[in-house]
Parts: sequence; C-alpha cells; structure tokens
Amino acid sequence: MDSVPKAHSHVRNLLSNAPVESVVRVTGIVSSRPPGQENPKMPTGDIEVKAETAEVLNFCKKLPFEIKDFIKKSEALRMQYRYLDLRSSQLQYNLRLRSQVVMRMREYLCNHHGFVDVETPTLFKRTPGGAKEFLVPSREAGKFYSLPQSPQQFKQLLMIGGLDRYFQVARCYRDEGSRPDRQPEFTQIDIEMSFVDQAGIQRLIEGLLQYSWPEERGPVMTPFPSMTYDEALADYGTDKPDTRFGMKIVDISDTLRRLDVGFVQNVLSYPHGTAKAICIPQGARYLKNKDLESLKEAAKSQFKQEIMDVICRPDGSLKSLLTRFLGEEQQSELIRVLNMQVDDVVLLAVGDHKRVCSALGSLRLESADLLEAAGMVLRDPAALHFLWVVDFPLFLPKEENPSELESAHHPFTAPHPLDTNLLYSDPTKVRSQHYDLVLNGSEIGGGSIRIHNAEQQRFVLEKVLKEDSEVLSHLLEALEFGAPPHGGIALGLDRLISLIVGSPSIRDVIAFPKSFKGRDLMGNAPDYVTPEELEPYHIHVSWPAAETEAKKN
Amino acid sequence: MDSVPKAHSHVRNLLSNAPVESVVRVTGIVSSRPPGQENPKMPTGDIEVKAETAEVLNFCKKLPFEIKDFIKKSEALRMQYRYLDLRSSQLQYNLRLRSQVVMRMREYLCNHHGFVDVETPTLFKRTPGGAKEFLVPSREAGKFYSLPQSPQQFKQLLMIGGLDRYFQVARCYRDEGSRPDRQPEFTQIDIEMSFVDQAGIQRLIEGLLQYSWPEERGPVMTPFPSMTYDEALADYGTDKPDTRFGMKIVDISDTLRRLDVGFVQNVLSYPHGTAKAICIPQGARYLKNKDLESLKEAAKSQFKQEIMDVICRPDGSLKSLLTRFLGEEQQSELIRVLNMQVDDVVLLAVGDHKRVCSALGSLRLESADLLEAAGMVLRDPAALHFLWVVDFPLFLPKEENPSELESAHHPFTAPHPLDTNLLYSDPTKVRSQHYDLVLNGSEIGGGSIRIHNAEQQRFVLEKVLKEDSEVLSHLLEALEFGAPPHGGIALGLDRLISLIVGSPSIRDVIAFPKSFKGRDLMGNAPDYVTPEELEPYHIHVSWPAAETEAKKN
Repeated sequence: MDSVPKAHSHVRNLLSNAPVESVVRVTGIVSSRPPGQENPKMPTGDIEVKAETAEVLNFCKKLPFEIKDFIKKSEALRMQYRYLDLRSSQLQYNLRLRSQVVMRMREYLCNHHGFVDVETPTLFKRTPGGAKEFLVPSREAGKFYSLPQSPQQFKQLLMIGGLDRYFQVARCYRDEGSRPDRQPEFTQIDIEMSFVDQAGIQRLIEGLLQYSWPEERGPVMTPFPSMTYDEALADYGTDKPDTRFGMKIVDISDTLRRLDVGFVQNVLSYPHGTAKAICIPQGARYLKNKDLESLKEAAKSQFKQEIMDVICRPDGSLKSLLTRFLGEEQQSELIRVLNMQVDDVVLLAVGDHKRVCSALGSLRLESADLLEAAGMVLRDPAALHFLWVVDFPLFLPKEENPSELESAHHPFTAPHPLDTNLLYSDPTKVRSQHYDLVLNGSEIGGGSIRIHNAEQQRFVLEKVLKEDSEVLSHLLEALEFGAPPHGGIALGLDRLISLIVGSPSIRDVIAFPKSFKGRDLMGNAPDYVTPEELEPYHIHVSWPAAETEAKKN
Repeated sequence: MDSVPKAHSHVRNLLSNAPVESVVRVTGIVSSRPPGQENPKMPTGDIEVKAETAEVLNFCKKLPFEIKDFIKKSEALRMQYRYLDLRSSQLQYNLRLRSQVVMRMREYLCNHHGFVDVETPTLFKRTPGGAKEFLVPSREAGKFYSLPQSPQQFKQLLMIGGLDRYFQVARCYRDEGSRPDRQPEFTQIDIEMSFVDQAGIQRLIEGLLQYSWPEERGPVMTPFPSMTYDEALADYGTDKPDTRFGMKIVDISDTLRRLDVGFVQNVLSYPHGTAKAICIPQGARYLKNKDLESLKEAAKSQFKQEIMDVICRPDGSLKSLLTRFLGEEQQSELIRVLNMQVDDVVLLAVGDHKRVCSALGSLRLESADLLEAAGMVLRDPAALHFLWVVDFPLFLPKEENPSELESAHHPFTAPHPLDTNLLYSDPTKVRSQHYDLVLNGSEIGGGSIRIHNAEQQRFVLEKVLKEDSEVLSHLLEALEFGAPPHGGIALGLDRLISLIVGSPSIRDVIAFPKSFKGRDLMGNAPDYVTPEELEPYHIHVSWPAAETEAKKN
C-alpha cells in the first residue's frame, strides 16, 4: 500500500515544479473542503481534489509580466502579449459580459420583436465624402473596393427590399490615422425599420437597453428624457450633455446688459451675442489658483474665448475684475441668478452664443474632473443618465467655406416634418429628424428617420449639398420603386460596453485591439509585402524620397 | 350621409390608379371576411379592411421586371435591382430563415454550452501562403493590412488567452478572382474549444445542427456516420461523398488480374495500380449513347483516365470491347461483383489508384445527374446525409514540386496520436486530426485538433514545410506560455443555408452578393478612385499599357 504516498509525492513534485500558468491535468477524487477551509472568493472554493495522478500538458516559460490585475504593465507590453493579458480577470469579465449583452440584444430584437439579422457586404464602393474609408485594391486595374463606415446604404436598400425590420451586429471601418481611443475597425448594433417614427425607434432602443443591461449594473429606467439640440447647447454647451451633475450654463445677458462696459454692450447688440456663466460649487476651496488659470487658458486656446472669474468671498461679497463695473444691485442679481454660495467660483464669458456655450460646456466638464480629483463627490459612478438629444439642425455651414452647406449627420436624414417647407426656402433653418442617444455624457448611438422620397433626396443632394449624385444613383433610383417610410439607429457597441464595465478605453472591451496608431503590436500588422504580391492588384508603392534613400543604404 | 360613398370612390380611385408595388396607407375597419371568402393562402386571408381613407406614401415607377417567382429574370438584371429581387417570396424566405437558423445556433452555443462570442479583427497581416488574401493599404508607406481568410490565428490565441469556448459568426475574405459560386466575402460559424478531442467537437456540432435545423426541413439524426479519407476515396472517389445513393466504386482488380492483356497486367503490377468500376443502374435505358461518350470524354480530359464501358444486354450477356478478353467465368464474376442487372452500364477504369478513383467518383456524380434528368428517382430531395470524413493525410506532395510537402489543410493541424512518431521519420504517412463535415455531397465544414506544443509546431513549419516561421513568431511564442490542448471547426454558413433552403447558388442566401467576377452590379463596386484618394496610402496604379493608351484617347 505504499503506492499512494509515492503517487502523492510524484504529484506534489510535479505540481510544485511546474512554472505558474502551465497547463496540467490532474486526476483524483473531488470532495468538499473540510469545514472552515472553504474559500468563498474562489469559484471552486467549496471543493478540493485529492490528486492521484498529474501530468503537465504544456509548460509555461518565463512570463513577460505577472498576470495580476493590480500590477501595472505598459500598454505596449500588454498589447504585444495580448493573449496573456486576456487571462486577466478584468479582460475575461469584459469579453464574457460583452458576449452576454449582445446575446440579450439579439434575443430582444430577433426573438421578441421580429427583426431579421441580415449580413451586409463590407467590400463596397466609396461613398461621397467618405474620406475616411479604407481602400481595397481589386484585380481590375485602377478599381478599388472600399470598407464602409457603416451599412447605411444597405440598411435603407433592405427596407426598400421589404425586409422591414433589419438588425446586424455590424463591423465598420474608419481610417482616421492616429486618434486616441478610436479603432480602425469597430462594431455597431445597426437597426432599421419601415413604417416607424422617431418615438418608435426611441421606445425600441429603451426596451433593448433595459432588456440587455446586466443586472448588476442596472436597473435602466425608461423612458429616457429628451432634450433638443438647442437646449443641450444652451444649458450644457455640448450635444452630449453629462446630466449626472448640475453646474448648468446660465444666461446672464440681462444682468450684464446694464453694465457700463463698451465691449460687453457691443457684443450683446449682435444677433448671437450673449453673456453666460457656470458656477463651480466650492471652487474656491477645491480648485487651486493654477487650476483656474489653466481652465481660462484652455478656453482661450481651444475656443478663442476669454473667461472672467468671480469668487464669492466668505463674507458674501464678490471678488472679480468685473466687480468695479457692477453696481450692488447687479452683484446681488448675479448671486441670485447663479445661486452663488460662499466659496463658489463663477466662470463668465461674453461673446458669440455657440462659442460661449461650447467653451463653458468644456470648462464645466474640466472643472468637474478637477473637483472630483480634489475629493468632492459630484457624480455617482453607478448612475445611468440616458438622454435623447433631438431636433438637430439638418445642415451646417462648411467649416472651410461657411457659405456652403454640409449635412450635420448624413444626406439621407429626413427634415423635421414642421420644417419641410423651409428646405426649399431657408435650408439653414431646417431641423432634422436625427436623434442621438447619450449616456453619462458619452454619445452611444445616433440615428434618424430617412428621406423616402426620391425627389426630396435628389433636391438635398444636388441643390442643397451641391454633390454629384451620380455615385448614389442606385439609391436614388431605388427610392422610386415604392420605398416605404423608414428610419433607424446605430449604437456604438465598443463604447457602450466600456461604459457598462467602467473601462476608460474601448481597447479593454475588444479582444485584439489596434494601438492608437492603428497597429497590431502582437502580430505586427500592417506589414510590408513583396512587389510580386502587389502585381495582381496593379498597384505599386510610392516610397517617400527619404525612405527610398534609407532602403538603398 | 353622402360622404361615405364619396370617400369610398376616392379610395377606390386612388388604389386602382396607384401602380403595383407602391406604398399606401389605408385606414378603416378591420373585420372578418364574409363566410366563404376567406383565402387560406394569404397570411391576411381571414380578414378584410373596410377602407375609409387611403394615401399613397410612395409611388412605384415602372418595374424593370415583375416580382413574381415564376418569372425568369436574367441574373445580371436581378443583381442590378437586388432590392426589388429581395421582395420575392423566395429571397424573403431565405434571408429570414438564415437569420432564424443563426439565432438558434447562438442560443445553443452561447446560452446552452457556455461559448463566448468574441469578435476578432479583419484588418490583420498576411499569413504564410495566404496568396488569396485581399490587401488593405495603410498610411505607412509600403505597409499593408490583409483581410484574413479565417480567424484561425485569433481563435487559437483566444484559447491561449483562457477564453476556453469561443465562437463567432465570422466574416472571412478570399480573393480568388473569378470563380463560379464563390464570394469574395463569406461567413463561417467559427468555433474553438480547449481540452477537447475530435469526438468532442463532432458531438457538439451534431447537437448544434440538430438544435438549429428548421423543423420543416428536419429531423437531423445523430450521431452522424464517419468514414476515413481512404474509404471515401476508394468507395466514392472524393473526400466529400454523396451517400444519398449507391453506385459505389467497386474494386475489380482480382477479376481483371487474370485477364490476358499486357497493359492491364502491367498496371496492376505497380504498387498503386488498380482496376475499378461503377455500375450505372438502367444506364442502357436512361442514358443516350452521346451521354456515355461525353462521360468517357470528361474522364479523359479532366483526369487523363481512359474509361471502358460494359453493357448488360437483355439476355444477360455483356456487350463491351473487353468481352473478347474475358472468359465466361470472369464475365459471371464481373456481373456478380458489380451486381449487374439487365440494362445496367458499367464504367471501368484501370490505372493509378487515386486517379482511377477520382475519375470514377466524378463519373458517378455526373451519371447520377444524367439519370435524374432522364426521369429516374435516385436521390430523395428531402434526405439529409451528414457524414464525417476523418483521418486525412497531414501533408500532401506539392503539385508543382512533388518532392516537397505542403499541409493538406493548414500547418496548425495536429498529427493523429498514433502517427506522431512518423512525423519525424516519414511525414508523408502521417494522418491528421482533421475532420470534414459533408452533407449530401457538399462540404459544409472542417476543423481539426491543433498542435499545442511549440516544439512540434516549429518542427512542422521549419523542417517539414520548410516555411519561414518568422511571420508566425507571435503564435509560436504564444504556444510556449502554457497553451491548453485545443481544437475547433468552421462551418460554411452560406453553403449550409443554401442546402437547407434548396438553392443551387449561395447567392440566393446572401442579401447583396457579388457577381462571379466579384462585382456589385447594383452599386457598381469596385470603382475607380482619384489619384488624390490614393495619396495617403502611398500607392499608385500601374496601368496596363493598353489601358493607358485608351485613357489617353
């Protein structure tokens, strides 16, 4: 009977000599742990195995880093050994949760609401203005496919094709060069419906998120509140307001209008001239002087907007360069309008409405971060503030040439039913039937009711946007064959999951992400190819002069 | 009360004047149809609407073809107006059924068997021997991504990363130029598991297909039968046997060995020399002389294999050029071995085993088609003959240089456990742990247990295949960090669905397929792009001389 101790010592030796992260096969008897030795922190903490044999199926060589969540690794090293990083409990949790959330979404759409999961091509052609689309050379000289940024055209063509409820977990592509926290390929929950209005899509998506949201991160309350684009801009200075905290932008034009300062009077006399402010609660206590300076500096460099600060002293009086121009009554009014308390700091701006709002909206977020970094509790990390933003403008002046118009979102967006006539008289005033879905200040989706009338679509493309509609001739023609009214939405899955799991970066919810330069650091992609491999595609590389020289030497 | 007839006549006029396929909105009272007027063939055949108002939401202009299933259209026209063809009941059925089948697969894998749906990148790098991969130029001069033919590397890396049950409905890419019924992008149900053997994967897939198979096309009986590659080749002349009918290949070497013909004796004396035949039941009645001639011609042109025919006359005697060399006893033996009946036709071949089998396997299928075209009932169209083909060779001699070896499937396939030692002594004799799944003579999937030992993988790549393992260094290194034993499979979804719905082409189960030349005839892709659009990618087009000339003029 000495074989048992022998086996035990063999097993002990083998297991204690195997390097960590090796793969072993152990056979033996599973039994409950003796009372008091259970470990509730381990999934297998209630049992133990009385090992009889053990075998190393594969050894693990020295790890480049320890697979422990609390050990900080450089991101480049994590990316190079992504398969090791995937073993961390955080990434395991993220990817498994992602799979479950998507499965619940599919059940909701496919099993409960009659949607059809349709795969659309990713090898297609360039869309007008699609400057961010990857190209794929074909075997026909000079002809290229392009990897679409979204299945927009196909989802509309499916509606025209009678597949009246379409969804797809769609891979999309966007070549933006280097951008932090963007990926060249990403995933969207892509949805389109016939015979639907804005409210119909919104209720569907609210139900979808409620149904698929992980229990431990919920509950999701519906319906989500709604806000017009104009309100969002005026109150939060952005089209994706973080409504988890106050510090809203307050209009103080009426108070300042009575100020005897020529510059202010002058600005307020313009059509879009305004004076606005945000109040940072306890700013004097939580923010350092250099914080305030850097906030003002940021507004100047990013928005070309001057900011004045006003501090409420312990005695209730105001400290500011502005006070000498303000009468006592105006000071009280300012305190009242902004609801200032002792130690609050007000940031104040005078100028063009959009610029002032944008600058203050940005300062609102930055100062919230500063307050929280200094220890103030401002936003509940478990809070879920969903928000629909609606009534966007349909067109915006082009940045490089403001006398021309471009689509605020895309040229297929339908005008607001009340503004249809303005399309032909004053297109800049037309609101759209576009809607964005915002969660805690991040845009997680957007969509619209589409134009289903060929004439209207052609007018928008040719007369308003002055685009060559030839590349979209198939879509324009398709609208002439009895296209039903339709609309849809796309949710950014990577961002959504990263918000659910509380990850700062979408790279933490993607199994094999690219670096911010678009590189795969594990497999070393993209990579050089031989001229022979390029031959079938009738292309060759135009080497930059310097590189050609380097290659020669 | 004259408003009601007025409304009625308005509605009647509007609806009778609207062109077919227009989109209308009708309001009114829904009620049961009067008894006897129900139409059980229509989904809405039990009710009618007493219309009160009607409105045309969108007119339909003159259709390029009628949307009726029985009207034959040219495929090019159908592809150009794909959105109209999608309205046909056949394509509606195909796409909706595809969505349902995939949803059931997801339920089985994700909800019932703990699989994690993981999205893997499609922008990666060229794999060794990946001559059929599309390239995607990057913004780094000379560097290209490539669109992978499958997520093979990623699924193995996921196993190493501890995601022990992976699946994905994966988009894959293959640039094969023009090929009938192939698509440049296609979809596979991609699966990988850790700690699994061949039988484990097979039982999983049998359960998956049984669970997801549409009721009206089932039932699926499990387990599926299994056949070795050698058996499949010997009996059916192919690695994807159609086992719905007999006409198996019969070895008649022993009978012919006694034939007094020098050529036959000579061939049979070679190691792989053989004589084989198939018997076409009632061939003399169902096949024309020219059919027989064209069968023999096909064997000669495609396989360089001479075929002799033997016909069984009504009196039981044999008619053939061969009979004068055959004694009476040998003739009876031939009749017995091949189970020949009156009017049967035997096709007979002498030569190299693989060539003879392949030629007869091909003739078996062609003559089955001819018999069915002539009215014989041979294959039950509702029959489901699933079959596992196993024990493939691990390596094959390269076609262009038979002294070198290439992987029969891919270099990650594990050797058969009984043949591991042969890997180092006689690799040509090593069987693999690859398995193919065949349905009614079509390959619908394939997979293998993978090599999980870095040393073995390196030996296969470097010593057997003589490949540069540098491009796979990340995978080889990953195997050194405690890779678990693992294996998987991929099912070709497009082919599978086309077999379920009984479509001859996978184009009928894809919403927006490409033509066999890889073109999208609706949107006109691929298309020309401007030199400016190529600039960020550091490439330019090498125009073939003729085309450059044409462009000049």
